[in-house]
Amino acid sequence: MHGRILIINPNSSQACTAGIREAVAPFAGPGLPRIEVTQLDEGPPAIVTWRDWFGVAEPLCRRIEAEPAEAYVIGCVSDPGLEAARGVTGKPVVGMFRSAVAAALTRAERFGIIGFTEKSLPRQRRALQSMGVEGNMAGWIPLNLPMHVLTDPIAPQARIAQAARQLADQGAEVIVLGCAGMAGHVGVTMEASGLPVVEPCQAGAAAALLAVVGARMPALLSA
Amino acid sequence: MHGRILIINPNSSQACTAGIREAVAPFAGPGLPRIEVTQLDEGPPAIVTWRDWFGVAEPLCRRIEAEPAEAYVIGCVSDPGLEAARGVTGKPVVGMFRSAVAAALTRAERFGIIGFTEKSLPRQRRALQSMGVEGNMAGWIPLNLPMHVLTDPIAPQARIAQAARQLADQGAEVIVLGCAGMAGHVGVTMEASGLPVVEPCQAGAAAALLAVVGARMPALLSA
Amino acid sequence: MHGRILIINPNSSQACTAGIREAVAPFAGPGLPRIEVTQLDEGPPAIVTWRDWFGVAEPLCRRIEAEPAEAYVIGCVSDPGLEAARGVTGKPVVGMFRSAVAAALTRAERFGIIGFTEKSLPRQRRALQSMGVEGNMAGWIPLNLPMHVLTDPIAPQARIAQAARQLADQGAEVIVLGCAGMAGHVGVTMEASGLPVVEPCQAGAAAALLAVVGARMPALLSA
Amino acid sequence: MHGRILIINPNSSQACTAGIREAVAPFAGPGLPRIEVTQLDEGPPAIVTWRDWFGVAEPLCRRIEAEPAEAYVIGCVSDPGLEAARGVTGKPVVGMFRSAVAAALTRAERFGIIGFTEKSLPRQRRALQSMGVEGNMAGWIPLNLPMHVLTDPIAPQARIAQAARQLADQGAEVIVLGCAGMAGHVGVTMEASGLPVVEPCQAGAAAALLAVVGARMPALLSA
Amino acid sequence: MHGRILIINPNSSQACTAGIREAVAPFAGPGLPRIEVTQLDEGPPAIVTWRDWFGVAEPLCRRIEAEPAEAYVIGCVSDPGLEAARGVTGKPVVGMFRSAVAAALTRAERFGIIGFTEKSLPRQRRALQSMGVEGNMAGWIPLNLPMHVLTDPIAPQARIAQAARQLADQGAEVIVLGCAGMAGHVGVTMEASGLPVVEPCQAGAAAALLAVVGARMPALLSA
Amino acid sequence: MHGRILIINPNSSQACTAGIREAVAPFAGPGLPRIEVTQLDEGPPAIVTWRDWFGVAEPLCRRIEAEPAEAYVIGCVSDPGLEAARGVTGKPVVGMFRSAVAAALTRAERFGIIGFTEKSLPRQRRALQSMGVEGNMAGWIPLNLPMHVLTDPIAPQARIAQAARQLADQGAEVIVLGCAGMAGHVGVTMEASGLPVVEPCQAGAAAALLAVVGARMPALLSA
Repeated sequence: MHGRILIINPNSSQACTAGIREAVAPFAGPGLPRIEVTQLDEGPPAIVTWRDWFGVAEPLCRRIEAEPAEAYVIGCVSDPGLEAARGVTGKPVVGMFRSAVAAALTRAERFGIIGFTEKSLPRQRRALQSMGVEGNMAGWIPLNLPMHVLTDPIAPQARIAQAARQLADQGAEVIVLGCAGMAGHVGVTMEASGLPVVEPCQAGAAAALLAVVGARMPALLSA
Repeated sequence: MHGRILIINPNSSQACTAGIREAVAPFAGPGLPRIEVTQLDEGPPAIVTWRDWFGVAEPLCRRIEAEPAEAYVIGCVSDPGLEAARGVTGKPVVGMFRSAVAAALTRAERFGIIGFTEKSLPRQRRALQSMGVEGNMAGWIPLNLPMHVLTDPIAPQARIAQAARQLADQGAEVIVLGCAGMAGHVGVTMEASGLPVVEPCQAGAAAALLAVVGARMPALLSA
Repeated sequence: MHGRILIINPNSSQACTAGIREAVAPFAGPGLPRIEVTQLDEGPPAIVTWRDWFGVAEPLCRRIEAEPAEAYVIGCVSDPGLEAARGVTGKPVVGMFRSAVAAALTRAERFGIIGFTEKSLPRQRRALQSMGVEGNMAGWIPLNLPMHVLTDPIAPQARIAQAARQLADQGAEVIVLGCAGMAGHVGVTMEASGLPVVEPCQAGAAAALLAVVGARMPALLSA
Repeated sequence: MHGRILIINPNSSQACTAGIREAVAPFAGPGLPRIEVTQLDEGPPAIVTWRDWFGVAEPLCRRIEAEPAEAYVIGCVSDPGLEAARGVTGKPVVGMFRSAVAAALTRAERFGIIGFTEKSLPRQRRALQSMGVEGNMAGWIPLNLPMHVLTDPIAPQARIAQAARQLADQGAEVIVLGCAGMAGHVGVTMEASGLPVVEPCQAGAAAALLAVVGARMPALLSA
Repeated sequence: MHGRILIINPNSSQACTAGIREAVAPFAGPGLPRIEVTQLDEGPPAIVTWRDWFGVAEPLCRRIEAEPAEAYVIGCVSDPGLEAARGVTGKPVVGMFRSAVAAALTRAERFGIIGFTEKSLPRQRRALQSMGVEGNMAGWIPLNLPMHVLTDPIAPQARIAQAARQLADQGAEVIVLGCAGMAGHVGVTMEASGLPVVEPCQAGAAAALLAVVGARMPALLSA
Repeated sequence: MHGRILIINPNSSQACTAGIREAVAPFAGPGLPRIEVTQLDEGPPAIVTWRDWFGVAEPLCRRIEAEPAEAYVIGCVSDPGLEAARGVTGKPVVGMFRSAVAAALTRAERFGIIGFTEKSLPRQRRALQSMGVEGNMAGWIPLNLPMHVLTDPIAPQARIAQAARQLADQGAEVIVLGCAGMAGHVGVTMEASGLPVVEPCQAGAAAALLAVVGARMPALLSA
């Protein structure tokens, strides 16, 4: 029972990678695969444009080919290269965005998303379409803050609280944080909106855990 | 950090409850809430009709009011009483069916469901509609076997394998087991279809774990 | 040709039952089944929560089993227990909400709904999803008035008129009154909006009449 | 209380007009508007092509302008000229097709349609789209029989029974007769399928009755 | 290679016909069919009501029967009589509205439409439904200007610019001009919105050209 | 008026590039931009996998930055890199797949697609979702032939004819050739199915022509 789940952050930001690591730390146990987090040093500082989004697919594939694991999580909330990654390994590959939206749908019918910048919307919309759930999105509000402001523990709180309240007013019943860099702001989002909040790093980890535990199950039962 | 997740099987079958307990056992760790499984002794032997489905809502509500927990899982793959249960507690409540379908959508675009009996379809369809994902279902095939055959480790395998292959032919890219009683048949389903398989007891447990860990997060970070 | 249609009000309000009776009185004729209205004395004063909604299914089923009729109408504009009721009788069972929405779609493409309280929306949305028509709803505006104000002939008129005008502005081409207690306010809704208005007690009665007359038809023709 | 509902058959077939009259005869009562049936003598023998469908709109408008009524029913199960007719009168105008489909949705979630000829499908599909319910259609099966065979009391029964059974197999839970000329075949359709059946002449009449009774209501209540 | 494409303006306005002719003039080449523009002298001055819309179908059919061409374009941005016209010729028939919306979808995901009057919306909505793309419309804003103001080169510019900006704010990524009379205002719409603009006369011409060139292709290749 | 449209074939097959060039040759005229076709020599022999699909985005962007044009067409019927390409130029960029599907919707309501291999389906489905038209696809049938067989003028005809007939049986009213390599088979597809056929190289060219002519229009009118 010695496998691991590998979360690959496709951007080169070590701060971002550290934040992911911290967010998923609670998901550990003797019967569970351990979760490791790495990053693409050759990736862009952040996935901002469609060109960035397309561009990280190839290095993601190479990394997966080079690093064996029981499952992989693409550590960016726009799921770049997901389909390509699935083509280079027989192991489960999940994306943080789809995982977070799926988790939201276990909690309520209508979700709202707080996005990083307005440029992320078309990519997240495409993923929502592939899941069939675009019609269940009550709202999508971008923060449009620089990454260093977003990851500050205090600075973005007023803006995030405002977005959270707005989504609640628009009918959201659960809120998805639309960027891995917002993990520190779960509390302010919950308080401001009065709604459950899904943090995508944790959602990706939970989806990968489930995939691994499920795939191990037949062996366990026959043992 | 001493909370628990309570899975409530709304039927009175102890065998079913035991099967759920076994399926979710791997999800344990020092930083995770423990998972406990109980049942409604006053429930029907199985949720077969709509009348059963409506009827367990009230006892589920009373049980939740009587038994504190950090989160609840409704332990039947038609999510009976889900909305009522959410009205009697401020804690997260998830259903096994929605959790399993959501998990499937983290793995692929089109899912197939192996159902218990054809009577389950309308209830599961209603839940799919509430999630918006009815259009992503590639197929739904009922087994129409008695429960004691279904839970036998060997007897239903040929029928399950056939259903799994049929769903693959219909375009399913991932298979959801549509009944808590099929937990022992993950292996045969995977082998027959060559597809990933989602077991709903585990999916419900993972969804509840994520909800609890996420809600604890602000306290952890500020500590 | 001595049958009857039984409308069962699942709440215990005699005022509400009387209002239904008055609304459906015009639907009488020598070749038509007579329409009778009764209520669940054991029901809640009103169907306000999901727990109420689930809870009346079982007494509705028992009442239907005890009282023979040619067709049944569930007399609450959230169609509680509809599927369960259909399971205990071979006779037609219709709900007032689905009947009213269906009637609206015979009059125009986009409907608006004036709801009793905002708590009714999720239940009505679920029914709309089952009909496939959620996308044709131009707006849904709750009154959030106490029942005794709502049934007053004068007091709620200004609020209702405002809601009706708002729905017209949002693109509604026909308005559905979303509660059996609003039967006295058809006029103000029509005047304020300039649109056709569907009263759900009447819509349920008409749907049941059609079901009975249709089922009698073969006998008539062969006679 | 001396109004009438006028059903206008847009084709010139007197047999068809007589059939409609017979089907709607039961809907009579002292408090109800009387139902009269007429036809367009200048119409085609049947509405077979799109050109026919477009072509009857203008004479329908002229007839409505010439013949006052409390409500109008367009007496063809493809609802020709419906929107134009609504533009020339302030009174309710309903179509038999939309009325029948709406009635089906009060009875079950998935409907099947037995069509006259395969040429009717695109027109009925357009109407279903306008109602938003195309996705709830389980099947559409044309008879492709000549009108004189269709209206024979015996000749088309085997073909109709076969279509009814096929629709049930495809998942239909209620069947809509897709042509006014099939009113005599409600019985065989019910028996063959074991499902409720909606006859469109009656459905149109019931929808118009509801519209008139609802519009009269404010006057009644204030009297 | 001597064929022609015939654009038939179904209204009787010679100014409108001239505008169409000017808009499509650039689409000429030695290997392309020539494009000719004509009008229905018996048509209404403009297609304003549903009655107008239905009414031009028959004269359009007669004109097509009388005037041979390799393809036809219905020269009004509500595609009147399209299905009827297709029934009287084996040659391609396209409508300007569907052509313009289709062209918009080659440029971006979400389109906005500037409509002539609010009365056009229901007809354009019906066409969008038949294409399946109603959900991709970000906004629909009518000008509600008289035709002689609309076709003035200067007078309507402020109103058009305002509508264009509003559509951009509503999320439109491309703008469709919703009336053949707006061909002179492509520039102001582009400038005001910063978005690509589709002019429907040109879109109809391009769709017809493609249809003719495609149908000729096998002959070309085998020559 | 000296601009050009540049079609960039993202694979390295010169045969494929030549085929595109031949298909678009008819679209030439004195008032039209000339159409040039080039290819990515660094591209894969064909776009077969998702990894190929993601991988050509970056070289496509670089090529567009290096080669000025009035508009660009991505010359592969899965529209790889489309969104990235739009981010590196202010000029119109269209994809052959979206252009072909849009063209199909100008011809009929339901389209069928003959695909290259079954691996293309998920990519084309994603594009259909972005257009909103997935529900209008009557069928999708892959040929699963090697490229050298597909481009043979004779060898694949029987298989193509069979697919075309099957799509017609499934309700397709127009057929889209799902690969640039099938341009020589328009004739057999038309004959076998009796339906209009859209060839994607031509559809992409027509969409780009329309974009350029439309954008030039204001200058023309003010001249």
